[in-house]
Amino acid sequence: MKRKITLKQIAKELDVSVSTVSKALKDSREISIDTKDKVKAFAKLYNYKPNNIALSLKNRKTKTIGIIIPEIVHYFFTTVIQGIEHVANEKGYNVIICLSNNSFDKEVLNLEFLANGSTDGFILSVAKETQQKEDYHHINEVISQGMPVVMFDRVIDEVICDKVIISDKHGAFEAVQYLIDQSCKKIALISTVDYVSVGKLRTEGYQEALITNDIPINPELILKIEDVDHSEERIEAFFSDKDIDAVFAVNEKFAVNAIKALTKLGKKIPDDISVIGFTDGVVSKSFIPSLSTVNQHGEEMGAKAASLLIDRLEDKVHEQSFQTTVLNTSLIIRDSVKRKTDSL
Amino acid sequence: MKRKITLKQIAKELDVSVSTVSKALKDSREISIDTKDKVKAFAKLYNYKPNNIALSLKNRKTKTIGIIIPEIVHYFFTTVIQGIEHVANEKGYNVIICLSNNSFDKEVLNLEFLANGSTDGFILSVAKETQQKEDYHHINEVISQGMPVVMFDRVIDEVICDKVIISDKHGAFEAVQYLIDQSCKKIALISTVDYVSVGKLRTEGYQEALITNDIPINPELILKIEDVDHSEERIEAFFSDKDIDAVFAVNEKFAVNAIKALTKLGKKIPDDISVIGFTDGVVSKSFIPSLSTVNQHGEEMGAKAASLLIDRLEDKVHEQSFQTTVLNTSLIIRDSVKRKTDSL
Repeated sequence: MKRKITLKQIAKELDVSVSTVSKALKDSREISIDTKDKVKAFAKLYNYKPNNIALSLKNRKTKTIGIIIPEIVHYFFTTVIQGIEHVANEKGYNVIICLSNNSFDKEVLNLEFLANGSTDGFILSVAKETQQKEDYHHINEVISQGMPVVMFDRVIDEVICDKVIISDKHGAFEAVQYLIDQSCKKIALISTVDYVSVGKLRTEGYQEALITNDIPINPELILKIEDVDHSEERIEAFFSDKDIDAVFAVNEKFAVNAIKALTKLGKKIPDDISVIGFTDGVVSKSFIPSLSTVNQHGEEMGAKAASLLIDRLEDKVHEQSFQTTVLNTSLIIRDSVKRKTDSL
Repeated sequence: MKRKITLKQIAKELDVSVSTVSKALKDSREISIDTKDKVKAFAKLYNYKPNNIALSLKNRKTKTIGIIIPEIVHYFFTTVIQGIEHVANEKGYNVIICLSNNSFDKEVLNLEFLANGSTDGFILSVAKETQQKEDYHHINEVISQGMPVVMFDRVIDEVICDKVIISDKHGAFEAVQYLIDQSCKKIALISTVDYVSVGKLRTEGYQEALITNDIPINPELILKIEDVDHSEERIEAFFSDKDIDAVFAVNEKFAVNAIKALTKLGKKIPDDISVIGFTDGVVSKSFIPSLSTVNQHGEEMGAKAASLLIDRLEDKVHEQSFQTTVLNTSLIIRDSVKRKTDSL
């Protein structure tokens, strides 16, 4: 019997990238005819059939949902998984989780691996690198084979499927509006680079709140960070020469690092500077001063994503109508913000 | 690197005779164009050379490792997964994660599901309920079927397999000894119920440190909590009538809740009471006062577990000799402990 072969093995054997193999099998124009011929000959030889997905879907249900997330040491994603697990177990589904570690190649491999008979459908939040490359062929391929996909949080407009997002822009707008309502006028933003969709949306919300209140957008008060894991030094350097009265940070880590950096510079939180973060993680609650945040409701997001996927797996929805569910965030005001009444 | 292949194998793979392959490669008119194209593409692909000895085609492994953990919204477990991922990816293995949610039944189902052809072996930390029931037949069954299993953190003595643990007892001993060295004498313990193996071991370490230093064990200073998620009220009630100078808590949540409860009661940390926790999570670092902890080195634990499993999968160890690796913890002293020199 010929052994079953994976995308990764084909890539290794032919000494090309996983994405090249994946695209070649889909007859992408990006790949040379010579390479396509090689890949296809090889795939044929080893009975590599992407259509296996469709076959296995018809023949047997695995009653298993695959989750692919970009990071695991990340409170928000773990709460989403918790929400998915809860609904999936209730409805008799197993859940298996794979990590992309924010790598495009790993995401392609995970998807191929899980689609190959192990799962009935996916819940997915895309890797940073995938957003950067803007290459979504692997997700579209799985969908076109008839496998339901639900995207959450970091979703892709170009991929047509069910989605669950929070109102990132509105959540940021509300947070900044709240700061403005407390008489803050010089509000700094600490965000991620723009290709991370949620960072971009939260940045837009910040800008919109300023514009709505006739406060000019000052690019010098905006810091965009690529490497989240080493943000501390960047944030410290950024604040060293800034005259501000508030900070809005697009995640918990940035918010905590902002408070630490400002404290080092002799500022008092919230008396001198108010801070609001995004994501209500374990740190926000425990931190002193406790951190005001935009709550993303991760568990609710996971539960909704699982419901959407299972409804589709059980044919409870029409095949062509996809929906994007927008969950509301909520603003949790704690001690890191100086309220207007505090100063009276 | 590409595999090298023989004529015979080409023939077998393409389901034609050796003579057909030979003739096709010589462009014989006896062979159809379609067959010639196939044979040539294949030969090209494998750098076919008449004298080369082919490598074995018998590798039919999934190259996938299954992880089963009790909880996901849990910093320590996510760092272990990170460590496993790192080593597994380096060695060309996929990783899939399933959660038992501390349920025995779910653990049984996960194991059955993953053992059914999806994975080559397991890395496992058992569910609380499994420890309570003392029923390990599902794990033993998988092992007896020839599937390698590595247990970590919450391991079971009765299951014979490779294990990676930290020195829970010694880590606790060191922490309590440190408190005693700082002149603490009335040290409270906040632990889990005894059937959770790590909680039991940490309790033993606490007791041993007291005995070693001729401090009597006072049962009234020991609180054992079943429901970790609702520990706050229990801890508050516990402290309301206690005369203590230090607290050792077996996890981060208990330590944080202890500090909050004591602060509510008007105590100052560390001036009135010193606190040490277990697990160096995100909260410990950010908390004010920053929390002294026993560091469990989760990533290192995951990396070791993955190495052990992969060595076994790749037959690098003898089948009958199992090892238990004990990783050292390290004590991280931060602001939540009043050092002896502080009071001079």
